[in-house]
Amino acid sequence: MKTPSSPLRAQVLAFDIFGTVVDWHSGIAREVQALHPGVNGGEFALAWRAGYRPAMRQVMSGELGWTLIDDLHRLILDGILAQFGLAGLTEAQKQHLNKAWHRLDPWPDVLAGLTRLKTRHTICTLSNGNIGLLSNMAKRAGLPWDCILSAEVFRAYKPDPATYLGVARVFDLPPAEVMLVAAHQDDLAAARACGLQTAYIERPTEFGAGQPKDISADPANTWHAKDLLALAEQLGC
Amino acid sequence: MKTPSSPLRAQVLAFDIFGTVVDWHSGIAREVQALHPGVNGGEFALAWRAGYRPAMRQVMSGELGWTLIDDLHRLILDGILAQFGLAGLTEAQKQHLNKAWHRLDPWPDVLAGLTRLKTRHTICTLSNGNIGLLSNMAKRAGLPWDCILSAEVFRAYKPDPATYLGVARVFDLPPAEVMLVAAHQDDLAAARACGLQTAYIERPTEFGAGQPKDISADPANTWHAKDLLALAEQLGC
Repeated sequence: MKTPSSPLRAQVLAFDIFGTVVDWHSGIAREVQALHPGVNGGEFALAWRAGYRPAMRQVMSGELGWTLIDDLHRLILDGILAQFGLAGLTEAQKQHLNKAWHRLDPWPDVLAGLTRLKTRHTICTLSNGNIGLLSNMAKRAGLPWDCILSAEVFRAYKPDPATYLGVARVFDLPPAEVMLVAAHQDDLAAARACGLQTAYIERPTEFGAGQPKDISADPANTWHAKDLLALAEQLGC
Repeated sequence: MKTPSSPLRAQVLAFDIFGTVVDWHSGIAREVQALHPGVNGGEFALAWRAGYRPAMRQVMSGELGWTLIDDLHRLILDGILAQFGLAGLTEAQKQHLNKAWHRLDPWPDVLAGLTRLKTRHTICTLSNGNIGLLSNMAKRAGLPWDCILSAEVFRAYKPDPATYLGVARVFDLPPAEVMLVAAHQDDLAAARACGLQTAYIERPTEFGAGQPKDISADPANTWHAKDLLALAEQLGC
């Protein structure tokens, strides 16, 4: 679906990662259940993810100093282990579980979609995840990024304008030649306010099959696609 | 060639770029001669590169604020154009020539060597070049980096320890599990002082075929290899 006014060709496509490229809900559920089969993995994943925005707000407000997502994940994890009966995990088990975010699998369309999009665009990450996390994830899953950009590079978390404008600056491009690709309307709205193009990707089961999310189109986005293969089709890749 | 004490396996190999991975001398010579056939391309390349260290020193001393290599290259270029009879280039030609550093070709062993090394290691750049330059170079040449790290990420130029230790920090590894791969003994010595492993790569024609450089082995390095294929062989890749 394309808006009536034909946009500039975006040289760089910057991808949100958690939820857009990888399925964090089923990945985290799988990892915690492997460690402790009695746990409700889906509930655990939701509880862990729910701590993410408040933790980032603490960093952006200055209440916490600059902190990598690996460390924020660990702070949140330590706060929820007891309520899921996991207080007895060893330190090594906790460290292993914390790195489950490095081992998330991509949605089924992602490898083929990125491979097509890469033929005509520079494809990079733009995630609040730290560089090490994103690199380990990409290596394990075979994600063919041209470049890994992260909040860690810009020392600011999305939706801070420094992140969206940072991508344009890195590639020495006007913001209108960069497109954010994401499954979250608030991320896209913040990018649009900085002058980027935006592509919304439907990920109805991001929060689990039992909690389908609203995937209505917002006409303010430049593109709206079911998945990355559909986006590749729309962009002529 | 391996030193007697068997080192830890390095999980991450971080590569110097200019001279180690790409042939800047012949690349710059080719580009300037394409623009202006009368110029001595080799001399021009040497003059441009000669301005690089003094310019970085100005940044690191605080005399210049933080500046990307693209911008340092342009400052140096503007200073040497007249002596090569190139003062008449248009602004568009100067901008195009300045980005010749994004279009350098890898040495003949690089693509096959990196592909082998990548099977058992995480491979990343560690260059004073900016992220956009390194990404554009990798995309054009097909360099299969797992991650692009740069002085721009650490806000410090090599040989500042923040760069070498920054790679270890990004990947949450002790410095001894990171190896710098470079064709320059001073870069390797600075990395070694931070606890990294080091691999020296011979690039005898870095400054042109007419000016072969000293490629003697320094036993302080963990490895010494003719090229990246030889290094892959030594590391069992």
